[in-house]
Amino acid sequence: MDIGSVNYLPYEDFVDVFGNVVEKCPLITAAVWSRRPFSSLADLEASINDFIDALPESGKEGILRVHPDLTGRDLQSGTLTRESREEQVQAGLDTLTTAEVSRMARLNTEYKDHFGFPFVICARMNNKATILRQLEERLRNERTIERACAIDEVKKICHLRLQGLVVPEKSNKL
Amino acid sequence: MDIGSVNYLPYEDFVDVFGNVVEKCPLITAAVWSRRPFSSLADLEASINDFIDALPESGKEGILRVHPDLTGRDLQSGTLTRESREEQVQAGLDTLTTAEVSRMARLNTEYKDHFGFPFVICARMNNKATILRQLEERLRNERTIERACAIDEVKKICHLRLQGLVVPEKSNKL
Repeated sequence: MDIGSVNYLPYEDFVDVFGNVVEKCPLITAAVWSRRPFSSLADLEASINDFIDALPESGKEGILRVHPDLTGRDLQSGTLTRESREEQVQAGLDTLTTAEVSRMARLNTEYKDHFGFPFVICARMNNKATILRQLEERLRNERTIERACAIDEVKKICHLRLQGLVVPEKSNKL
Repeated sequence: MDIGSVNYLPYEDFVDVFGNVVEKCPLITAAVWSRRPFSSLADLEASINDFIDALPESGKEGILRVHPDLTGRDLQSGTLTRESREEQVQAGLDTLTTAEVSRMARLNTEYKDHFGFPFVICARMNNKATILRQLEERLRNERTIERACAIDEVKKICHLRLQGLVVPEKSNKL
């Protein structure tokens, strides 16, 4: 689908296609439909990012809290969204050793107890080694810094999900 | 569950219990968890309403756009959320005559084409006759007025869903 076709979508189809580019936040997709027509995929992405940035801090924490734990109960029980499952599998998070699973679970719990939201990272830009290292490092961040860091990861995830749904501009010019 | 127990819920359980008090907007529930402890059910409800009121107009339209059509494709195909299904059934919307279904579908389409969001009404405070009448009347509203009217209905739906989940304060004092 190219951006021209995207601009013609009724809101129901738009939400069907893009409703999970920010995990479990179809409200955000449904809101930015108001800003069409989009001049490009980058323009659609910027509209989503602008909406996120304009939310109060509690709203940004809300976005994080509806994300699943990495290698958490949703991966184990098969209740991840399709997008999250593919991303976690691609990063090798379904093939952790028992020791790695324990370490991840312990660090995730420590992180959530500390910040009140789950550790969010763009799994497709990482692997299990870099994810574990970043989890340990980011645990030491100050709360405001860490919230901003996690929201940046949400935007990276959104960027890659959008790339998978809309033909990038270069192809449109061919 | 009473409000004291609610205040002890980790965010994951809080979102599991209250994630759909605003239809398909767990982001809102997850955001207001930041404001606990709540002094009462009314305080929790006020936090949700405050969050909605602070959203930009596009965000309010986003909330409306993730709501299902009354008697629409989700009711027919069984893909409504549990809460929406019960509310639509309680208002008798699963027992419309063929003529009523046609009229509702025609008015819903007209409404969506006009406003860019679906007709939202608190079904449990209405019946099929009042719903059809209000749909016709509200179609004539100015856009800003109608958006505010629809958001008021979202809050009424949220109020009743919360009442079903938390023991009202009076009972706590017994």
